Amino acid sequence: MIFPLVSLVGAGPGDPELITLKAIKAIEKADVILYDALANEELLNYANDLCIKKFVGKRMGCHFLSQDEINATIIDHALTYGRVVRLKGGDPFVFGRAQEEIEAANAAGIFVEIIPGISSALAVPAMQMIPLTCRGISESFWVVTGTTKTGGISTDIHLAAQSTATVVILMAMSKLEMIMDIFSIAGKRDTPVTIIQDGTTKNEKVISGTVKDIYFRALNEGLSNPAIIIVGEVTTIGHNFLKIQSSIRANELSSVAGPREVFRN
Amino acid sequence: MIFPLVSLVGAGPGDPELITLKAIKAIEKADVILYDALANEELLNYANDLCIKKFVGKRMGCHFLSQDEINATIIDHALTYGRVVRLKGGDPFVFGRAQEEIEAANAAGIFVEIIPGISSALAVPAMQMIPLTCRGISESFWVVTGTTKTGGISTDIHLAAQSTATVVILMAMSKLEMIMDIFSIAGKRDTPVTIIQDGTTKNEKVISGTVKDIYFRALNEGLSNPAIIIVGEVTTIGHNFLKIQSSIRANELSSVAGPREVFRN
Repeated sequence: MIFPLVSLVGAGPGDPELITLKAIKAIEKADVILYDALANEELLNYANDLCIKKFVGKRMGCHFLSQDEINATIIDHALTYGRVVRLKGGDPFVFGRAQEEIEAANAAGIFVEIIPGISSALAVPAMQMIPLTCRGISESFWVVTGTTKTGGISTDIHLAAQSTATVVILMAMSKLEMIMDIFSIAGKRDTPVTIIQDGTTKNEKVISGTVKDIYFRALNEGLSNPAIIIVGEVTTIGHNFLKIQSSIRANELSSVAGPREVFRN
Repeated sequence: MIFPLVSLVGAGPGDPELITLKAIKAIEKADVILYDALANEELLNYANDLCIKKFVGKRMGCHFLSQDEINATIIDHALTYGRVVRLKGGDPFVFGRAQEEIEAANAAGIFVEIIPGISSALAVPAMQMIPLTCRGISESFWVVTGTTKTGGISTDIHLAAQSTATVVILMAMSKLEMIMDIFSIAGKRDTPVTIIQDGTTKNEKVISGTVKDIYFRALNEGLSNPAIIIVGEVTTIGHNFLKIQSSIRANELSSVAGPREVFRN
């Protein structure tokens, strides 16, 4: 006798090594994996041979399945096969619509477990050495989405623009100009901004500027979602770290033949 | 020839399975591990036999080493032994004072790599099934610390109290009453609040209430740091999920003899 179980699993920001041990164990035990466009497909290699793998995400912004269809797919597969892993990019509870999937599964009498993932909102800046908080500079960070239920800009962005927090904005490239205007009105024209597309993957693209010019820079570089917009002085700290670090690496390389890695264990 | 390397590694919120594969690989290769009180010591078992393991954190709120002493320890060990893993609870860039350690290491010509961790700010609520964001209810979340460089309450908490964001406050138990007063003044006396101490560990303690009564509830239960305070309607969603789920589990158990796990795979 097998009870159905739905595991909402965070796949992390893109780098397949930025997934938790708990998530890998859930994937290994899964009878079915339902995965997003944002989940790294390499992670499916942890699945057992009998595991059914289905893509249920979005591609090119067009829905592959509606949320209702995804919910129904989760329930059908859990009742038929047992263990369903719903593999979501980043963390399931950060703009992941997890609560809609939990409600649907629970309504069908199915138990749901949550396995948190590394949120891109935190890890993507971190890989650019941008500390979201920094004593004396930013004592908080605010994570906002550009895409609200109503399709408008979240009113929270207006409040965030007035705060001293590092502001991290997800899924907002289509509204970048409007959002930067909000920060300008809040007197932050010269606040540094960094945008990272496909963070932590080999396709990663990074641009930096200020509130007043980042929109044009992004336009020139043709940046689009999935991208993360970071507004705050901490972005400058990150750039400085990267500069110093590349000179440290260069010194190391110049002191030997071949890449540093060869000389590490 | 070996170059010194400092890896700032996020150990996650407490559950030793909530660490990334990348972090485990760094620990396995480490010559030295310098760890915090918040890092789960079970993680040291991934280290190789020759690895030197040193505790450099705080215990009972009293500093074991000052930040300057920690920085010096990191540099000494990296220059002497090579690969140093600085293992920090949660994520190194979320109130982890990582930038101070990077600056010190870089100033000594040492390369630093960042390995993000699961932040307790996100994972601890998630394990209580509290979604930090929820379409139509909370379109953003704000992570604030109660402990600032100056020792006062972060002005961001005043702004956060006025926002529609889910507010997550870390390291703030000693200022709980003051902080709840700020939310009351912002007209949020009846907003639900949950406090989770030692989240994701076997010592986890959870209490819930509202802005107006949570301080007294916390006092009665004797809650203290490390604890996470979550202010927002989403906490109610979490409680409801937990209720429904325990009844689902109870139904499953009543339908069979023995625990559910026996009947899974």
